[in-house]
Amino acid sequence: MADERIWTAGLIIIGDEILSGRIQDKNVQQIAVWLNLQGIRLGEVRIVPDVVPRIAATVNEMRATADYLFTTGGIGPTHDDLTVDAIAAALGVPVVEHPDARAILENYYATRGGVTEARLRMARVPQGAELIFNKVSGAPGIRHGKIFIMPGVPYITTGMLDALSGTLEGGKPLLSRTIGCWTAESEVADLLRETEASHEGCQIGSYPLFREGRFASNFVVRSVEQSALDACAEGLAAALEAKGYEVSRGEI
Amino acid sequence: MADERIWTAGLIIIGDEILSGRIQDKNVQQIAVWLNLQGIRLGEVRIVPDVVPRIAATVNEMRATADYLFTTGGIGPTHDDLTVDAIAAALGVPVVEHPDARAILENYYATRGGVTEARLRMARVPQGAELIFNKVSGAPGIRHGKIFIMPGVPYITTGMLDALSGTLEGGKPLLSRTIGCWTAESEVADLLRETEASHEGCQIGSYPLFREGRFASNFVVRSVEQSALDACAEGLAAALEAKGYEVSRGEI
Repeated sequence: MADERIWTAGLIIIGDEILSGRIQDKNVQQIAVWLNLQGIRLGEVRIVPDVVPRIAATVNEMRATADYLFTTGGIGPTHDDLTVDAIAAALGVPVVEHPDARAILENYYATRGGVTEARLRMARVPQGAELIFNKVSGAPGIRHGKIFIMPGVPYITTGMLDALSGTLEGGKPLLSRTIGCWTAESEVADLLRETEASHEGCQIGSYPLFREGRFASNFVVRSVEQSALDACAEGLAAALEAKGYEVSRGEI
Repeated sequence: MADERIWTAGLIIIGDEILSGRIQDKNVQQIAVWLNLQGIRLGEVRIVPDVVPRIAATVNEMRATADYLFTTGGIGPTHDDLTVDAIAAALGVPVVEHPDARAILENYYATRGGVTEARLRMARVPQGAELIFNKVSGAPGIRHGKIFIMPGVPYITTGMLDALSGTLEGGKPLLSRTIGCWTAESEVADLLRETEASHEGCQIGSYPLFREGRFASNFVVRSVEQSALDACAEGLAAALEAKGYEVSRGEI
């Protein structure tokens, strides 16, 4: 069980608008949750600017260690959309026009003013790529081997994740249960450490909060095995109750 | 002007809860905005798990290239709070108890059940560190040279950023103006590229949206020079109006 293969993904968020603070990123969370449902762990995220060599270097570093690599942002029609060029450079392949992508764009824009040189930028892919179906708007996403190139607009990415669901090989999803407790985490630090140590294959994360004038904590237990998860979560809840704390079997 | 020094910062978000998707990160945006007000550009963000060697390696990679390095998360009292140990390992210094931090914690917990071994974990710092004042709760943040170690809870980090305001050397803040336009960005891609190219020291980012059944775009012009910024933004607005588009001098 401990030797079971863990499938991992990296994620690169490409965009000056996130690094400047203009936009609150929404893609990390939705991709993290979606990946876990596929049995894949998000191992690292990097947020980088719209600069080709920076994107390319990051792609090459991250694809070396993860089973899958996702990117969001930079695949639109304007001059600041540089992701395809950067990934092609990273892979050492030319940028080519994908005939199916061109057909999709010609169809999509037939009633929207027709394709233009700018719009056809969205048919450009690193040579060897296939397309990811976009059910929300016109331009498709791009898959090149283990690299998945998605847009920055969150609701369009949602649709592409939906199209990819169940198509990626993964392992067991990481399961979690939350035990809430009306105590400061510092009061029960030893109990948490001991409970984690006595339940193999389980991790406990501790997240404090302050609400209605009281300190509380959510303890998130994680495991790939339901039985181990339940034993650890129930053991933790019982131990907290035995010390007289008010416990919630679920998030506070 | 083009040769002016640009001050940069890296940011490491430390926490399984972000990578699992359980929590929506709020620190990237608030730190990005705050840094820009200090005249410092956020150059890269990495989100890494609660794993000492991963944190340490990331610290060493990122501190090599940025003027400042910020971290959030992992400085609480529980077993999953590993940031201080990881940064000490990265710097090759021991972890020591900071006497002022101990005094702060003893005072804070005097009316809250007293200090315990777990709570005193929050007085541990990489040797050579100074403290960052925490006006919201007890445990201080930590500064070690160019590294700023902050908590994961956003409102506590807000208070620490406030305490640091004006204390870091920086350059000129990057200014921005947004020109909104009721058009798909793909219709005006050439105009955007040409406008950017003819205004030195300015960048234009293009961010599409779809609202009330219509396509629109926000064009964000950025520059460190107010006069260049205004010339580029006004030039862009006038060029869009000359083509007959409905323009908003501000975000749509």
